[in-house]
Amino acid sequence: MAVADIVQRDVTKVTVVGVGNVGMACATSILSKRLCRSLVLIDVMGDKLKGEMMDLQHAAAFNPNVDICASTDYANTRNSQICIITAGAKQKSHDESRLALVQSNVELLRKIIPELLKYSPDTLLLVVSNPVDILTYVSWKISGLPASRVLGNGTNLDSSRFRFLISSRMDVSSKNVHGYIIGEHGDSSVPVWSSVNVAGVPLLNFIEKEGLESEAEKINQEVRVYQQDFLTLFHLVRLKQVVKSAYEIIKFKGYTNWAIGASVADIVHSLIRDEKAIHPVSIIAKGRHGIEHDVFLSLPCVLGRNGVLHIVEQTLTENEVLKLKESAQSLWDVVKNVEL
Amino acid sequence: MAVADIVQRDVTKVTVVGVGNVGMACATSILSKRLCRSLVLIDVMGDKLKGEMMDLQHAAAFNPNVDICASTDYANTRNSQICIITAGAKQKSHDESRLALVQSNVELLRKIIPELLKYSPDTLLLVVSNPVDILTYVSWKISGLPASRVLGNGTNLDSSRFRFLISSRMDVSSKNVHGYIIGEHGDSSVPVWSSVNVAGVPLLNFIEKEGLESEAEKINQEVRVYQQDFLTLFHLVRLKQVVKSAYEIIKFKGYTNWAIGASVADIVHSLIRDEKAIHPVSIIAKGRHGIEHDVFLSLPCVLGRNGVLHIVEQTLTENEVLKLKESAQSLWDVVKNVEL
Amino acid sequence: MAVADIVQRDVTKVTVVGVGNVGMACATSILSKRLCRSLVLIDVMGDKLKGEMMDLQHAAAFNPNVDICASTDYANTRNSQICIITAGAKQKSHDESRLALVQSNVELLRKIIPELLKYSPDTLLLVVSNPVDILTYVSWKISGLPASRVLGNGTNLDSSRFRFLISSRMDVSSKNVHGYIIGEHGDSSVPVWSSVNVAGVPLLNFIEKEGLESEAEKINQEVRVYQQDFLTLFHLVRLKQVVKSAYEIIKFKGYTNWAIGASVADIVHSLIRDEKAIHPVSIIAKGRHGIEHDVFLSLPCVLGRNGVLHIVEQTLTENEVLKLKESAQSLWDVVKNVEL
Amino acid sequence: MAVADIVQRDVTKVTVVGVGNVGMACATSILSKRLCRSLVLIDVMGDKLKGEMMDLQHAAAFNPNVDICASTDYANTRNSQICIITAGAKQKSHDESRLALVQSNVELLRKIIPELLKYSPDTLLLVVSNPVDILTYVSWKISGLPASRVLGNGTNLDSSRFRFLISSRMDVSSKNVHGYIIGEHGDSSVPVWSSVNVAGVPLLNFIEKEGLESEAEKINQEVRVYQQDFLTLFHLVRLKQVVKSAYEIIKFKGYTNWAIGASVADIVHSLIRDEKAIHPVSIIAKGRHGIEHDVFLSLPCVLGRNGVLHIVEQTLTENEVLKLKESAQSLWDVVKNVEL
Repeated sequence: MAVADIVQRDVTKVTVVGVGNVGMACATSILSKRLCRSLVLIDVMGDKLKGEMMDLQHAAAFNPNVDICASTDYANTRNSQICIITAGAKQKSHDESRLALVQSNVELLRKIIPELLKYSPDTLLLVVSNPVDILTYVSWKISGLPASRVLGNGTNLDSSRFRFLISSRMDVSSKNVHGYIIGEHGDSSVPVWSSVNVAGVPLLNFIEKEGLESEAEKINQEVRVYQQDFLTLFHLVRLKQVVKSAYEIIKFKGYTNWAIGASVADIVHSLIRDEKAIHPVSIIAKGRHGIEHDVFLSLPCVLGRNGVLHIVEQTLTENEVLKLKESAQSLWDVVKNVEL
Repeated sequence: MAVADIVQRDVTKVTVVGVGNVGMACATSILSKRLCRSLVLIDVMGDKLKGEMMDLQHAAAFNPNVDICASTDYANTRNSQICIITAGAKQKSHDESRLALVQSNVELLRKIIPELLKYSPDTLLLVVSNPVDILTYVSWKISGLPASRVLGNGTNLDSSRFRFLISSRMDVSSKNVHGYIIGEHGDSSVPVWSSVNVAGVPLLNFIEKEGLESEAEKINQEVRVYQQDFLTLFHLVRLKQVVKSAYEIIKFKGYTNWAIGASVADIVHSLIRDEKAIHPVSIIAKGRHGIEHDVFLSLPCVLGRNGVLHIVEQTLTENEVLKLKESAQSLWDVVKNVEL
Repeated sequence: MAVADIVQRDVTKVTVVGVGNVGMACATSILSKRLCRSLVLIDVMGDKLKGEMMDLQHAAAFNPNVDICASTDYANTRNSQICIITAGAKQKSHDESRLALVQSNVELLRKIIPELLKYSPDTLLLVVSNPVDILTYVSWKISGLPASRVLGNGTNLDSSRFRFLISSRMDVSSKNVHGYIIGEHGDSSVPVWSSVNVAGVPLLNFIEKEGLESEAEKINQEVRVYQQDFLTLFHLVRLKQVVKSAYEIIKFKGYTNWAIGASVADIVHSLIRDEKAIHPVSIIAKGRHGIEHDVFLSLPCVLGRNGVLHIVEQTLTENEVLKLKESAQSLWDVVKNVEL
Repeated sequence: MAVADIVQRDVTKVTVVGVGNVGMACATSILSKRLCRSLVLIDVMGDKLKGEMMDLQHAAAFNPNVDICASTDYANTRNSQICIITAGAKQKSHDESRLALVQSNVELLRKIIPELLKYSPDTLLLVVSNPVDILTYVSWKISGLPASRVLGNGTNLDSSRFRFLISSRMDVSSKNVHGYIIGEHGDSSVPVWSSVNVAGVPLLNFIEKEGLESEAEKINQEVRVYQQDFLTLFHLVRLKQVVKSAYEIIKFKGYTNWAIGASVADIVHSLIRDEKAIHPVSIIAKGRHGIEHDVFLSLPCVLGRNGVLHIVEQTLTENEVLKLKESAQSLWDVVKNVEL
């Protein structure tokens, strides 16, 4: 009896709320990485839910040993270690700012979160719905959970895209490219060029050797405001590619999902396996780098079984701090007006 | 130079034709199992193609070391070891027989296959589009490839669903449940109950011990025609669940994709890694179990780097042979009328 | 606090007692399959222990996220889910029967097992030391644990060797070859030829088709006693290869370890991941196939988090039952004389 | 026929020369990571060789799909992509300098390398035998291969140990700790503290924040010579732990093997999968950081299918350059006297 009790708790269980394109990409990524023994899908659309469950169950026949359940009833989520929230209205185009989606999604979270906590009071909440920084803040407020147990997908994907672009450019494994995009997951995100390195060698060294200086210099002529910070020039060119790529994919296929799913599985891996690996995720940023408000935005965090274990203190350039504060302010301008 | 030449050939390269729900599920399953170093997506819809490629590339940043390319130009498929064909009109509902889709897809294959062979004359062709048995036959005819290099996804998924249902019922790992559904991937498929076993123990033994005899007997009363074959009674109850489940999923979510993707990745794994594992795939069946026509249907096959290495000769009951021949005949009735 | 408590229990922890060649092969196999978060090595040789621990820790730097501890103090094994016992005098040559080693190892187990249970009262005990069937029985008696929580490595390895030989002969993946060796792990083991099958097709069918009949017939002429059971003829030829191969390896390199380590990791995988997969392991056999005594010997078992969940009831031929009973009797002849 | 030809080349084949503790740890690590389809073991001890082969083959039954061959005949190594040399007299204790082993191993390499090249003229040579930097140089000279195809295990393991110690100290995944030990694999190795970082944050920042300054300062008082380079102080304390740990393990268990095996598999993975990942391996260093002689020592290299693709140019402190040159000089003092 005692034994059965222990076993029950031992089962790694993950809940995904929302079975749209993003929720299903999260579910299939988590399944393909075998991150849990029990996966629960929750949605309000019973038919879609049943179809997706059956389809995943049949797929799981090739990857045995996972219980897959889909239901409109939150009782099935009991004892989840992680609840992933993908439900919510989606960003429709570049013209619609991520920040504009917020209020319609707040109402949704007010329904979802109390139900999740009712059955898993100690769960970690991982928010994926956009605008993710605002909705992670909202989820924290609604849930009453400690801030260490509420996190947003944030710029984990942006940072991965960022490393991918650099590694492709340099023909090196992306494992050896280290760099973060922090701040808002959106237009005001901040690439921390000052600490980007390949195998410990600052990217700047590579750029100089490859004669990219003149290219940067050319831009420099045009954009006087960034004179004092060489690297931000590069930022102007490259960052757009990172931020805009999501908009491009939406334009081309109507939505993004595969990369978000992979990013979420990556975070879930570190949480559930207690990896203590560092990811940029959306977390309460008050008191960091001079940020004064209760905003959530992405900073590099050590993630483990108990959620966010530490926030890594990066040394930012003055310009990077400035931009991060602007990012925080633009988030606060929305957050302070949200009605909870 | 010689070295570069070898390296080029060494790269495992897979092409997926069609980036609809099925094609993308195949692509993501193959990527998550890291089955190739180079993945090419082909379609006629340039925008969708570009969006999917970018999304997968960003996802791949979490699983480094795969080159992903998407194009409308078949030149990019050069030197593919396996080409997977998912393009084609999809089955819309239970009411539309799989066999009715055929002629519209033949024209499509006449465009696709010569382009694939132009750049990869030694490729393996893996057909996923439905009706899969007919279209695998058509692909064989159009391609002029040896029959060992043309195969269809067939009942590989049905067999997996079948084992999943039995393993769930018996609370045993599906790894230890052995059994095949053969014949048409569709309404006339044949579950080979006579050789289903769990760890070498015929399923019949388990059924007797679990007191399922009376349940079977009850059905027996109603269905006189199957008196002589105890196990087919069971078939009546359970098989419907297997065959119908695809229709159910289509009804619920509009299409099936995850399980098909997993099935295809499972087959690709055995082919590309030269596993010599046994899968029921659609293959030319003439001369097997008394089948007289050039039909393709699923039989258990040993798969390796060179495609179908052997067809396993199962010992079937009279009733199973009868049903297999009916399945072959119903396929031939369509195939003989196809205009190539 | 409650959270920390749960986390503590969640950590998968495995203890290996004995850091000789076999113990270390078990440890490295378990680590390479990432089956636990915490691995404890126990031995009485402090220096050897420390050297192996440091070596494994440095190796683990390439496979992060495992805590490796080595100690002479059993307090470090607290809350192990599985304790693997590899300590004991080893079989020195073919001339020394496995059964002769027993009494010297009983004393050792009387020291080890109470210490393990003191810190992990609910552990599973997996016995690897030889003669494994006797020592598993002894471990069960000393521990007072339910029989479902005490199992021996048994013929899991022999069965794997058996499938390997058949699969090599037939050029098919060993995944598709199903067959078991049961009974004693040693000279009286029983290959269950009657249920050996490849993808559900009885091996006999293949043998007939490949014209091996005459080879078998030739043996048949010589060995009249097995006339009634065709397959056991084959057994005479092949089984020797399985049983003798361990002796051969010992002769050539002084001991066997890699394959035992792989076998143990295979069992640990099914136990710790609750796979419900079927393995032939040494388990209490009383009441099975007419065995009347409290002997442990290998039968196919469903393994999960709680140990041995079921024993699979195989249908054996008369001859197989006879040989199994002989195997049981030869074990009982030793067991009944063991002083506990 | 053409097809069979391609297939033959496609098979990933690795040869390990020497089946002592190190060679076998390399073999089992490579097998457990499934890095090749064909593994060949070469040695002069026929019996030991046969025993190890059989043991590995039986283990491989749990990890199907690898051909394992062991032989005294180099003809079996034909078409190996990588040949790993572990043969050679081993370092016996701290008292015996690694450099003293060299001449006895040169004769051995003069026998081994021409045999390997006879059957695999385009192979990569990965040298593991110690003193590894000297023997990699010797192998390069004897083989006549381009320097990009001859590399030594070098400080790949030392660097991993180094990161492991730092990550344990900081309770962060070692994936996020970046740092290299370069130079000789031995007493004169050089930890590049100036570029050690955790997620892009220089280790120095962490040290300051954790109040380790005073500890460093204290050492500073004693060791005036390092005044100008804060970080090397830390080096004094910690590096000894890295370099000495190999000696400690040898003292405790008689040899090191598991960690070397893991390091070799790590390198083989990057080579065979064309990962373009960065490893510190022993490579010709002439012209780097002011090194003037034809010595081999470890520098961070990008590794791929064609061997060493690039050497990463690290920015070293003056002190680090000084120490690297001393390391190079101490190697040259031996190398220049080796008779080839």
